[in-house]
Amino acid sequence: MREIKVGVIGAGVVGSSVIKILQENQELISNRIGARLIPTKAVVKDLTKKRDINIALSDDINFILEDESIEIVIELMGGVEQAFEVAKKVLEKNKSLVTANKAMLAYHRYDLQKIKKNHPIGFEASVCGGIPIIKALKDGLAANHILSLRGILNGTSNYILTQMIQNAMSFDDALKQAQILGYAEADPTLDIDGSDAGHKLLILASLAYGIDAKPQDIIIEGIEKINASDIAFANEFGFVIKLLGIAKKIDNEIELRVHPVLIDKDKMIAKVDGVMNGISVVGDRVGETLYYGAGAGGDATASAVISDLIEIARGKNSAMLGFEKSDNSLKLRDKGKIQSRYYIRLSAYDKTGVLAKISSILSKNNISIQAFLQKQAKDGIAKLLFTTHISQESSIHNALSEIDSQDFIESKSFFIRIDE
Amino acid sequence: MREIKVGVIGAGVVGSSVIKILQENQELISNRIGARLIPTKAVVKDLTKKRDINIALSDDINFILEDESIEIVIELMGGVEQAFEVAKKVLEKNKSLVTANKAMLAYHRYDLQKIKKNHPIGFEASVCGGIPIIKALKDGLAANHILSLRGILNGTSNYILTQMIQNAMSFDDALKQAQILGYAEADPTLDIDGSDAGHKLLILASLAYGIDAKPQDIIIEGIEKINASDIAFANEFGFVIKLLGIAKKIDNEIELRVHPVLIDKDKMIAKVDGVMNGISVVGDRVGETLYYGAGAGGDATASAVISDLIEIARGKNSAMLGFEKSDNSLKLRDKGKIQSRYYIRLSAYDKTGVLAKISSILSKNNISIQAFLQKQAKDGIAKLLFTTHISQESSIHNALSEIDSQDFIESKSFFIRIDE
Repeated sequence: MREIKVGVIGAGVVGSSVIKILQENQELISNRIGARLIPTKAVVKDLTKKRDINIALSDDINFILEDESIEIVIELMGGVEQAFEVAKKVLEKNKSLVTANKAMLAYHRYDLQKIKKNHPIGFEASVCGGIPIIKALKDGLAANHILSLRGILNGTSNYILTQMIQNAMSFDDALKQAQILGYAEADPTLDIDGSDAGHKLLILASLAYGIDAKPQDIIIEGIEKINASDIAFANEFGFVIKLLGIAKKIDNEIELRVHPVLIDKDKMIAKVDGVMNGISVVGDRVGETLYYGAGAGGDATASAVISDLIEIARGKNSAMLGFEKSDNSLKLRDKGKIQSRYYIRLSAYDKTGVLAKISSILSKNNISIQAFLQKQAKDGIAKLLFTTHISQESSIHNALSEIDSQDFIESKSFFIRIDE
Repeated sequence: MREIKVGVIGAGVVGSSVIKILQENQELISNRIGARLIPTKAVVKDLTKKRDINIALSDDINFILEDESIEIVIELMGGVEQAFEVAKKVLEKNKSLVTANKAMLAYHRYDLQKIKKNHPIGFEASVCGGIPIIKALKDGLAANHILSLRGILNGTSNYILTQMIQNAMSFDDALKQAQILGYAEADPTLDIDGSDAGHKLLILASLAYGIDAKPQDIIIEGIEKINASDIAFANEFGFVIKLLGIAKKIDNEIELRVHPVLIDKDKMIAKVDGVMNGISVVGDRVGETLYYGAGAGGDATASAVISDLIEIARGKNSAMLGFEKSDNSLKLRDKGKIQSRYYIRLSAYDKTGVLAKISSILSKNNISIQAFLQKQAKDGIAKLLFTTHISQESSIHNALSEIDSQDFIESKSFFIRIDE
């Protein structure tokens, strides 16, 4: 049986798990592909660290790059520019590349694709490890124009929101609990500010639309400002709050954004709770499909890494990002052009004339109110919660900036888009 | 750009949709694969029937088989033996084969695989068209030992059950409504008796386990006997009733069965309602993943057919059923060995001593009751509804057959397994 030697750069949680699964499920995998995938070498930063893996180790990357017997290199070192340099070297050495590095791909996926035409590069593990969404978009749904894609792409945020919704926890307590359970890092910034979900959305947008966008080109907002009033309002009106990555085709423009949304609680994607991830994709022919699974964790991510090794071993050839030829007619849509219903929270000193003034500012900006809830004033401060009819994003920004400048406003306004 | 000519055998709803999508989404598809997929000929049974497609037609299968320019043949004629004969001829002519024919595959998938090693054969459309589950099992989850698979594989049954649960419809009314809406055939037998789901489960079991079983080898039960008492009992105890196809690995044995289950209403799969399909797969590494989408319909099925064309055009080589070499240690588990909790419905004449007798029969068969509900007798007939602790399938059969022979029994007992 043919042997395919594999090198692993970065043997942390995911790397160790890849090595173990290749060893422990070896018979299953070789039965499936008719070849043996053998991890022969790993490169690590710190050789003195104790590791529970059985493989030759080095702290020199050339240990793998210069080994001509190694056909596939798995990049799990993290970071952006340094990882990209390593990935380039892997391709220059004519080895196949598998990476789980979403941040690197968010910036350099098109650079990588350009280096060598149809050279095997796998990155299933970069987006929601437990969900084979890369293959679904490249292969399973390839006959479809993708009308929209909505994903719960970050398990940490979803866990925090689920705790806030189901157990009435505060944001801070839910975050602390996520850290205790190992669902959030000591520094959870990239998870809760939407950056991590943004990286993943950009990768998915390339596969769905061939759109080359970078994090700075799109709206990326996190969940840090959501509070108990928002949760209660959403619940009152039949919504839950989720952090979604959204890609939408509107004529020849593609809208890309990551932000919290109020979403009808009966939708399938609204039922994806806890640390789980879910992605709903609507195709012009297939209708809605939804994929659900673990977003992170060593074994789930490793399972995705190995699915790429298997695909490479089977000799599948296709463009890395799913298009042999891009569709130049599709353009990234301007952020200000978003149209949505909005949920808005204002905090104002309880005086006469406040509501009249707010209403007049909204009306001047062509924003009409759909549902309104004013909470009884406490310590002289009233909470005004309301939803709008469909409005233009730029109008909302204008109106809220004028409202925030009024002297009766106690603290800055906050809004959440309503997803329909 | 390379042109790949495609012939379509059977141009009903799905075939027409395949031809149209290939024509209408041609630019997208050729951008994706760098080749043009061109449907050139279709074979139909009745040439006089008016069709809304633009393609050369014939009622002679050799119109396609003898055309050397056609590289891929799509079999959409239905039936078992005749379709298998056609499929064999397609392979003998060295053409690639794409089929949506689950009944044919339920009987002949291993025969087909044997004809030519690693010859391109695609059948994504045979199981839940809108869900790329074949590719997920062959590729995405290939690193995993599949611990279990549970699928809502038949949209008609799921629609009927959903109507019974959510709108308190009777089985007959729900079936009638499904027929009016086009979700059920005039003769709905294969959908509601579990056969259709059984065919699909057998195909999935091959991909997950390499198990060669035929419909007659496994338990296949339908939803015809479920009534309002069962629905109400399930609801009372936090369950919904779904028709599931279940594959489960227990040591080196694989349990395969299709039947209604009571399932915890909070599970993701329990939330798949209406005509939609859903499949939950648990892998030893990836944990639970779930796939959701349309199960049938011309366009969704056609989308799956075209995903196979795209895969073939991309030159992916892999064993048709996902294994180059089968794992001979896995065996089909004996039907009587199933262990489960059970929900049981008895209908008895309201006399003294009935409960004592039933209890003693159950206890003699090592079946212990977990929850019990006796409905007030109506017309002298009492309904006894209860759930058991984990019991052996064979003990349940023995006990119920003894109970059914008692003279106080008004009509035959009915049970539903509880899925946990």
